[in-house]
Amino acid sequence: MGVYRDLGKNFDEWFDWIVKEAEVYDYGRYPIKGMGVWLPYGFKIRKNLIELMRNLLDATGHEEILLPLLIPDNILAKESEHVHGFEDQVYWVTHGGLTPLDIKLALRPTSETPLSYLESLWIKSYKQLPKKYYQFVSVFRYETAATRAMIRVREVTTFKEAHTLHSTFEDSERQVAEAVEIYSSFFRELGIPFTISKRPEWDKFPGAVYTIAFDTLMPDGKTLQIGTVHNLGRSFTIAFNVWIHMPDGSMDYGWQTSYGISERVVATLISIHGDSTGLRLPFKYAPIQVVIVPIPAGPEEVRREIVELCGRILEKLRADGVRSVIDDREDMTPGDKFYYWERRGVPLRLEVGPKEVQGRIITVVRRDNRIRTSIKLEELTEAVKIIGIEYDKAIKNESMEAFSKHVVRTSSLEEARNFIEGNVVEAPWCGRTSCATEVELKIGGKALGTPLKISESEVEGLKCVHCGDRAKTFMRYSRRY
Amino acid sequence: MGVYRDLGKNFDEWFDWIVKEAEVYDYGRYPIKGMGVWLPYGFKIRKNLIELMRNLLDATGHEEILLPLLIPDNILAKESEHVHGFEDQVYWVTHGGLTPLDIKLALRPTSETPLSYLESLWIKSYKQLPKKYYQFVSVFRYETAATRAMIRVREVTTFKEAHTLHSTFEDSERQVAEAVEIYSSFFRELGIPFTISKRPEWDKFPGAVYTIAFDTLMPDGKTLQIGTVHNLGRSFTIAFNVWIHMPDGSMDYGWQTSYGISERVVATLISIHGDSTGLRLPFKYAPIQVVIVPIPAGPEEVRREIVELCGRILEKLRADGVRSVIDDREDMTPGDKFYYWERRGVPLRLEVGPKEVQGRIITVVRRDNRIRTSIKLEELTEAVKIIGIEYDKAIKNESMEAFSKHVVRTSSLEEARNFIEGNVVEAPWCGRTSCATEVELKIGGKALGTPLKISESEVEGLKCVHCGDRAKTFMRYSRRY
Repeated sequence: MGVYRDLGKNFDEWFDWIVKEAEVYDYGRYPIKGMGVWLPYGFKIRKNLIELMRNLLDATGHEEILLPLLIPDNILAKESEHVHGFEDQVYWVTHGGLTPLDIKLALRPTSETPLSYLESLWIKSYKQLPKKYYQFVSVFRYETAATRAMIRVREVTTFKEAHTLHSTFEDSERQVAEAVEIYSSFFRELGIPFTISKRPEWDKFPGAVYTIAFDTLMPDGKTLQIGTVHNLGRSFTIAFNVWIHMPDGSMDYGWQTSYGISERVVATLISIHGDSTGLRLPFKYAPIQVVIVPIPAGPEEVRREIVELCGRILEKLRADGVRSVIDDREDMTPGDKFYYWERRGVPLRLEVGPKEVQGRIITVVRRDNRIRTSIKLEELTEAVKIIGIEYDKAIKNESMEAFSKHVVRTSSLEEARNFIEGNVVEAPWCGRTSCATEVELKIGGKALGTPLKISESEVEGLKCVHCGDRAKTFMRYSRRY
Repeated sequence: MGVYRDLGKNFDEWFDWIVKEAEVYDYGRYPIKGMGVWLPYGFKIRKNLIELMRNLLDATGHEEILLPLLIPDNILAKESEHVHGFEDQVYWVTHGGLTPLDIKLALRPTSETPLSYLESLWIKSYKQLPKKYYQFVSVFRYETAATRAMIRVREVTTFKEAHTLHSTFEDSERQVAEAVEIYSSFFRELGIPFTISKRPEWDKFPGAVYTIAFDTLMPDGKTLQIGTVHNLGRSFTIAFNVWIHMPDGSMDYGWQTSYGISERVVATLISIHGDSTGLRLPFKYAPIQVVIVPIPAGPEEVRREIVELCGRILEKLRADGVRSVIDDREDMTPGDKFYYWERRGVPLRLEVGPKEVQGRIITVVRRDNRIRTSIKLEELTEAVKIIGIEYDKAIKNESMEAFSKHVVRTSSLEEARNFIEGNVVEAPWCGRTSCATEVELKIGGKALGTPLKISESEVEGLKCVHCGDRAKTFMRYSRRY
């Protein structure tokens, strides 16, 4: 039983099964632990999500670049908190051919250090600012924990990292807000529900002033971090001498932010919308939006007409910009085809049999609720597009509503303990680290952080769930990935 | 003096200058030799070329995938010729954090080995064939030779590698022909002239049965390899047990091809079309197709009208799908702006001053020949598109014609020696390795290989330029990068 809907088996099994079965990602067979292969169908899902993110970033003045994969040891080590956060999990290149390298090279775990080094060469004046760069790249972390397809991998192949530079702290704060807005739009567009939390001090990005994280709830009731936004302050600009001419003629260090998402978005999209049959992809982002399945029956002549009609429909839909395929495999029954495409999450199925040919009426079947609609042939494209929009709305609402039921507030430690399984629990908090740590132990959850905005009235009169002192805010807890 | 046109200074200087000046690629400043940074403008050029290649591959049934970057030592070593070709130039990852790895991991130099490993898991039957995969990835080679932006780098960031699998040798031969056709279309579309040669035995890809290469002539008169197509035979399918059910019920090894291009295409596009002022990008693939430059003059009211008209034109062009910008910087003269955008190779410039406002006539200036045309405001988009097409035709013809003059045939060793500077020389050849090697030494060029098709009549009566025996074909020679 999942948080969102019944997945038939338990979530872990379901996830591994559908990722393989729908040919999204080949995992666990490549002979390096934690590294997988994007298969053609999965690659297309990934590509559509990348395009969506790219559009959001381009529309807000971000510029795409590409930095080298390798970072010299001495560059990575320049910002001390940062390097301590990463040095245990960096892959090191030590040899070129048989020759030992003079200086070892890290496979990038993230690119704050090389980009700051470059910004010290590129950026001279406040007039060039703000500067917003991004790249889609592989990053590498030698994870010692158990790995999992797309969710916890050693090669994160789809890391979108954005890095911005500003002449004032205020402007970097505005950028953090913009990043939060971009990610919110992105996840909302995909129907992925989330909480936005300011991570506790002890859980922020190495080198950051603070970290804001997007967490979603997976069907097994554990939260997964799906995006982070960091205000980096001047940690890296000071370490790398990103030294800028200011409007008043002085020279000073710039201010930075960075924010990232990864292929966890794909894992989440699959998990949150899926059901026991398989994927349910959003119409707008599905690699295949419509599958046409001929239902051969009746005399030879009718069968021929069915094939012809399917062909004409395919042509028309494609010309109208609907990503469509026809499944004319001869060694499969229509029923097997239905199931095949349902597993792959294709939003709409068109059935074309003798009845359809005769009546010039096409049967459209929705993947989410299997509701069938009969559509006049002449109105097919328009109807498909409208049903597609309704379908997207429906699957989004379903996950958003389910999620909202699993974010619960309580001032009782006992209730918190009871709720921690399968929910995000918000409990009043005095602000002391020790109290949050105690609560973590007592309820068996991990602190996610505090909501970005809490009004006075929301916490008025509330007491810290641990020490009983006046609460300043809420701390969120959950079982975390 | 370049092969195509005057580049003002010598080519090497010009190339380094324009790559930096037009903000294509930051090279030589990143603290690892042979690794550079794609800057926003260069990234967009690169992206447009990638899209073109992707369309050609998708249209011919290729499927995009993404394999891990790292290849375990024992996988890379499975095909012996292959590993001997690469082992001296592979970067090795030996540590994860502080922990030495059990088995060292190569940064992919190319992906024949991991993909063949995976195909042994994925492909069971001839019914699944042909299979055509491709990916756009970074590949790494620890080059000891002098490096050069995009042309000879240690991280090739834009490697498009395609890998195909077939049930018969004949089908793999058809695939080679298809690949040659795809690459020919690609380069023709970009106006990049080329020869197609079957590389000599001693210069083929490690593990291949034979290699076909595309070479272009750079402005300095040296040839540059810009694409290769390999028939791999069964070297890798035997090494990796890619063992397939055949139509007759037997089991047998599959047949493979692979083919690749890299960011050398970007370097070539820049070099072949450029002139002493800077880039001249094809209209169809330029990140910015049109720049609108206001020419502020006259009374305040007219100046305001100029600004307004520029804004309206920008809106209209963008709405009509023309990638346009307006340069309204206040601290630059129009003349400086002209030069700025000419360096960046923007194909068309629109000048909007008092005359234009008054006459509702816009001045369009072509980047290639600086010819000015006056266009009625109402006809602007249409005219821009037509001029764009003419411009593309013109710059293509220019480079194709120039190139054709530099491919010369001769049966005289002395002539060959005289021609080798700045040309591709084709000389009759008996087919013996020793003769080609001798000719290389005597004329100071390198053998590129033989043309794919030579008719009997073309070589009839011709004698090997070295030994005087009957010639079987021509061998091409050039100064090579």
